[in-house]
Order: sequence, then C-alpha cells, then structure tokens
Amino acid sequence: MLDLQTQRTTPQERDLIARLERLSSSAGSHSPSLTMMQEALPDIDVRIDACYLSNPLATDLFWSHFNSDASKDPRFFMRMLEAYPSQNRIIAERFSHAIAVDPGRIFIANGATEAIQAVLHNYSSHVHVNVPTFSPYYEFATPKHEVTTFQLDQDEDFVLDPERYVQSVKRSGADAAILITPNNPDGYQIPDDHLEWILSQLSDLRTVVVDESFIHFSREAESQRLPTLVGLTDNYPNTTIVKSMSKDFGIAGIRAGYAIMKPSRVNELLDHGYLWNINGLAEYFFSLFSRPEFLDEYRTVLKTYNGYIFEFKLKTSAAGFIRSYPTGANFQLMRITNGMTSELVTTLLLLRHGVYVRNCADKIGLDGEFIRVAIRTEPENALIFQALEDVLA
Amino acid sequence: MLDLQTQRTTPQERDLIARLERLSSSAGSHSPSLTMMQEALPDIDVRIDACYLSNPLATDLFWSHFNSDASKDPRFFMRMLEAYPSQNRIIAERFSHAIAVDPGRIFIANGATEAIQAVLHNYSSHVHVNVPTFSPYYEFATPKHEVTTFQLDQDEDFVLDPERYVQSVKRSGADAAILITPNNPDGYQIPDDHLEWILSQLSDLRTVVVDESFIHFSREAESQRLPTLVGLTDNYPNTTIVKSMSKDFGIAGIRAGYAIMKPSRVNELLDHGYLWNINGLAEYFFSLFSRPEFLDEYRTVLKTYNGYIFEFKLKTSAAGFIRSYPTGANFQLMRITNGMTSELVTTLLLLRHGVYVRNCADKIGLDGEFIRVAIRTEPENALIFQALEDVLA
Repeated sequence: MLDLQTQRTTPQERDLIARLERLSSSAGSHSPSLTMMQEALPDIDVRIDACYLSNPLATDLFWSHFNSDASKDPRFFMRMLEAYPSQNRIIAERFSHAIAVDPGRIFIANGATEAIQAVLHNYSSHVHVNVPTFSPYYEFATPKHEVTTFQLDQDEDFVLDPERYVQSVKRSGADAAILITPNNPDGYQIPDDHLEWILSQLSDLRTVVVDESFIHFSREAESQRLPTLVGLTDNYPNTTIVKSMSKDFGIAGIRAGYAIMKPSRVNELLDHGYLWNINGLAEYFFSLFSRPEFLDEYRTVLKTYNGYIFEFKLKTSAAGFIRSYPTGANFQLMRITNGMTSELVTTLLLLRHGVYVRNCADKIGLDGEFIRVAIRTEPENALIFQALEDVLA
Repeated sequence: MLDLQTQRTTPQERDLIARLERLSSSAGSHSPSLTMMQEALPDIDVRIDACYLSNPLATDLFWSHFNSDASKDPRFFMRMLEAYPSQNRIIAERFSHAIAVDPGRIFIANGATEAIQAVLHNYSSHVHVNVPTFSPYYEFATPKHEVTTFQLDQDEDFVLDPERYVQSVKRSGADAAILITPNNPDGYQIPDDHLEWILSQLSDLRTVVVDESFIHFSREAESQRLPTLVGLTDNYPNTTIVKSMSKDFGIAGIRAGYAIMKPSRVNELLDHGYLWNINGLAEYFFSLFSRPEFLDEYRTVLKTYNGYIFEFKLKTSAAGFIRSYPTGANFQLMRITNGMTSELVTTLLLLRHGVYVRNCADKIGLDGEFIRVAIRTEPENALIFQALEDVLA
C-alpha cells in the first residue's frame, strides 16, 4: 500500500493520511464521527457525509416541524431540556397507534443499538450472525456468549440461500439467529416468502432477530402505513423486530429506535430498567408520529429520496471503474477492482473531494477491498459519483 | 380521606382530583412528568415544578451557552440532530480533564439511571438498600436478585448510624450496598469520616455504590473543582460513584450522567454495549465541561442557588404548620402533621396554587404522610412557602 500511496499522493496528502490513520485507530470500533473528524483535522473540508446512512430530506422535514413548533412557544425547546422525559411505556402507548402495533409489544429504545444490546444480553447465549453484518450483533456478545457465522457469498451478490441458512443455524447449535433485511453493509433484501419460510423453520429457536432498519428504502410506502415486516413476524413470538429510526428519519443524533417483541419480554425489560432512556428530543420525535400530516409529508419525502437512490444505482451499476452490488437500502457496497486499497480510496475521496465514505477493511467476512457509499441528495450524489470516477478511473 | 376531601374541597376540585388520580396510576412507577400532566389536564395551570429536582439557574446557564453557540453557526444544532454522536470512550476522554478522573474509570451514561442499571445488573446479585431511597435501586433488581433493606429512622432525622449500618449489611449477606449522600428523599448527608469508615469496613464486598447526585448542593464549590466524593473512594476499587447531572445542571431532558468505577468494569461494560448511548445534545453538554469559563459561571450560579436553598430551609424549619427535616440537598422532605393525607395536600397545592410537589405516599420505608419539595428560585420559593402555608396552616 505504501508504494501506491507514494505513487498516487502528494507529500501534503501523505501527512493528512497519517493523521487520519491515527484518528481512526482512536475512534473506537466504528468510523470516526463527523464531529470528531472536523475537530481533529480542521484542514480537511468534509463536504459530503456518505459514511453514515441517513435520509437528508427527512432531516430537513424534522427540522422544519421542530422550528415551527418552537416558534409557537418560546419555552418549547427549553422545557424539553429541563424536564424529565416520559417513561418508556408512556411513549410506547402514544407511538403504538402510528405503527399499528399493540403497545405491550413495543420496547422504545435509545437508538436501535440499545434494543440490540437488550435482546442479545437477555435472550441469547449463542448468536448466529451472517457475515458481513452490522458489527454490534457480534460485538455486543459478552464473554459468556458463543458467536458463530454464516458466510454470505459476494460472488452471488450476498444473496441469502434460505435452505443453506436454516441448515447452518441448526447445525451451529445457536439459540439466537440474526437477520438484517436489507442487510448492512451489502443491501441484500430477503424476499418475503423466503423470510416467512425461514421463520417457520426457526420457530423453535429461543430468539430470531429481524432488523428492518433500512426497510423504508426498499419498498413503496403504502397509503396508510410505512413499510414494515411486523405483520410477517406476527405468528412467531420468538421473533423480535429491531428498527433504527436514525436512517430513514435522518436523526442519528437524537437516538431513537424500537423493537417489537412478545409482551412478556417487554415487561421483563421494563420492569427492571430503562426507566428514562428516551431524551426529551426523542420523545418529541416519537410524538410527531401521532400527527398524520407529519407521516404524509414523510412519505412524500421518502418517495423523492427513493427516486435519488434509484438514479444513483443506475449510474454506478453502469460504471466500469468499480463493481457495485444490488441494494435494497440507501447505500451501496462497492468493490475496488483497480488494485488500490479501500483505505487509500477512502482517504483520497476525503482529501481531494471532501467525500467521506465507509472503508470496509474492518468488516469480518468481507474478503477484498470494499467501500460502502451512502446515497444522498441528487446534487450530492453527482459529486460523489464524480469523486469516485476521479479517484478510481 | 374522602371525608377530609369533602370538607376541604369544592366539587370542581374533587373532579380534578379524580382525574389526577387516574393520571398518576397510569404514569408508571414515578410521578407523572410535567409534559404528561399538561397534556392530560390542560385546565390545571402548573406554575412551579417543585417535584423534579433541578437547579433552574443552571438550566438558564446551559440555555445561554447553547444559544450563543447556535447563533455563531446556523448548522450547529441541526448537525447535532443529524450526525451520529461520538462513542462512549471518546466522550469520557474529553470529559476526564474537567473532573480530574482517569478516563478509563469513567462510564458515561444516558442519565444516572442507566449507570444504576448497568451496575446492578452486572455487579450485584443481592442488594442492600437504605429505606426510604431512590426507587430504581430496588426496582432495577431483577427476579434473580435478592433485595434487603436498612431502615432509616425519621425520629433521628434519617441519620445513618455507621456501625449499625455496617452490621446490617454484613448480616444481610448482600454482595452490594447502596449509599446515596445526600440521600433522596430525606436529604441526609453522610459525614466524610463516617463514609470513609463504612467503605473501609465494606472493602471486601463485591460492590458499594455511592450516589453523589446531590453533592453540589451540600458543599462549597472549591476554586478549581466541583464537589465530589471520588477522592474519598479512590482506595476502594469495589466502590462505584454514581452521578446524575440532571439536578445540578438542570437538564433532566438531555439524559446525562456518569459512573466512576474500576477500569476492568468500565471495559467489560463498554466492550459489549453502550456504543452510541449518548445523544448529540448530551455530547454537547459534556463538551461544555472542557471550557473553564462554563465551569466558572456554573460555580457562580451554584453559589447563588445554594443561597436560595439556605434561605428556604431557614423559613421552613421555623414554620409551625409542617415538620421539615434537615437536608444537604436541593429539596426538603416534610411531614404533614395536621391530619391531612399527602395525597390531598399534593393535590390542593397543585389545584389552588399550581405548585407541583412530590407525594411520598409510595415511598417504601417512609411511614406517615410526607411530601418532598424541590427548592427553586427566590420568588418561586416564596410562592411555594405561601402555598404550603395556605393549604396546611
């Protein structure tokens, strides 16, 4: 890699690369946050965050509602900071109408990661994960846990073969199986009939997690409700739906997510913890859901954004300078085929174009040089594409 | 109680009392939040929140810093909503300088309640709590836990006798002992030499929790640092300091707290969870701490507020219509001595004066009719005192 660096980079770039490497190694188990990057390396101008996976149109929508509510009442936001938020069950009760799920099945979480931790720590001892995957699903396993993996095949576009998968779960002896659909980082979406068959085969397992955090980007929003797999899993009480709201609603900083599970588990969790786990801003966000006009506007925004995703995918799949995988999510996994490392590509995209993408070098079960690119607004997508072309072609 | 209600209330008040009772019974294990109350009972004008325990001057201080920072950068707040926050260890690293504690000993929490849950669920199987106490210390015990209690004596002003306490812990067979100082709800502060002796006697216990959430109100802020018991517990690696920041900094809605414990425990917790448990606003709050001018201003505000507390206590201790207990915190426990129930007093304070205080009827280990009154600004304290006098005298 050093040779390539010397060939393709300027001395100033090499200095920044070294500083960026130091930052990444101190950032913990995930990519450095944008804030961290800007504090540590103020001379890098990050113009587009294509690393974290959020719908920027939805951020604007939230922002406009927040500002409109704040303008009507000067103490609106200050009260949110000062007062204790409502308890978990109260928020679930209000939120349940919007997602048409019984409140007793809803565990409101401080981000989906809190729900993942709660389920793994309380309802599993041996977890079977598909790799590549979202890393908390194995990182949150404690020393008391066993973790086994099912390898997804990049030569088959990461398609999950239902029969091989079910065999693998049963052979592993795991008591918990994790399915993300569309999957992170590759974007493969399990067809409904495959998922249903898998759940029926695993109905004796202690726990099956179906993480639908990216489901809004894969299906047309129906007229009344938002896309969800909840209905599909209703017959399988061992199944937990995990849902991040950071991505589709563009509000990762607020920490809002939830899980749907059988009422006895929700009660076990809430009777002994998670008292005030939802902050005032997140409570406000959950309350926005009870307003039909917010959901209407969100569906419009989602449709526009899903159009951007479609257009971006058209362009990347036709591009000869990189190998892109089919995706049902708002990001695309790409394989670098010109001999450069993912680290060098990531760094040059950042230094030369201010485009921050996810270097997948640390992804277990992903053999080769990969980056993951979040899809954003139309003009940003054009810049991302140009940047990729410039660095790779 | 019904007789008293009929004697002392109007029919309209009795209707509101009934609706308030229904609200309280649906609010979960703690008092209904102010937001909940205002939504459910818009005809009650809550003018003073003397139920939740926060320093209102500190809320104003946070608010002014937030607004000043937001005015310099139009995307300041929006970025906080949109971007993933930094991970736990990154925030601990930055925050460690301000509290002069090694970052490896800091567990940054989504409110102190998250820290309490983490410690109880991971480092105890039998908890010994002093009653009355802050209820999560026994509510968070799981069905696998045993809970035993040490009764504080109201006739001795809830003073903790060190020798009797240590004997009680040892006799109980508990592996975890919980000390809150100043204690909630009575405000008794354990003298340093007593606490040190207790810790030395319990150094073989698996876990001792010292909750110092109200410590700022009990001691003079030193010139450089804020009051803390961390130094006192340094020699006892089985001891965990728990610290809420909702009270002293007046920001309960942000959810910010932390615990200080031995590095091996911090690592165990963070290696398998709590990845992004701090929201963007809370991360901003922790970063404010790294600014010496913020801490200087906070100390000034704290001194003024502690003056208000001193004045309020002078008045209540001289009042004949209620029995007030000595307190080292920013609230005062009061015993009703005129035959009215705490429920009736709480309700009349709310209906007639818009003053919301804590009805202590549900507090285990508190025999009699008690309310807990949060101390606020000078004019609010005057109104609270008048309201108490009007309802009780």
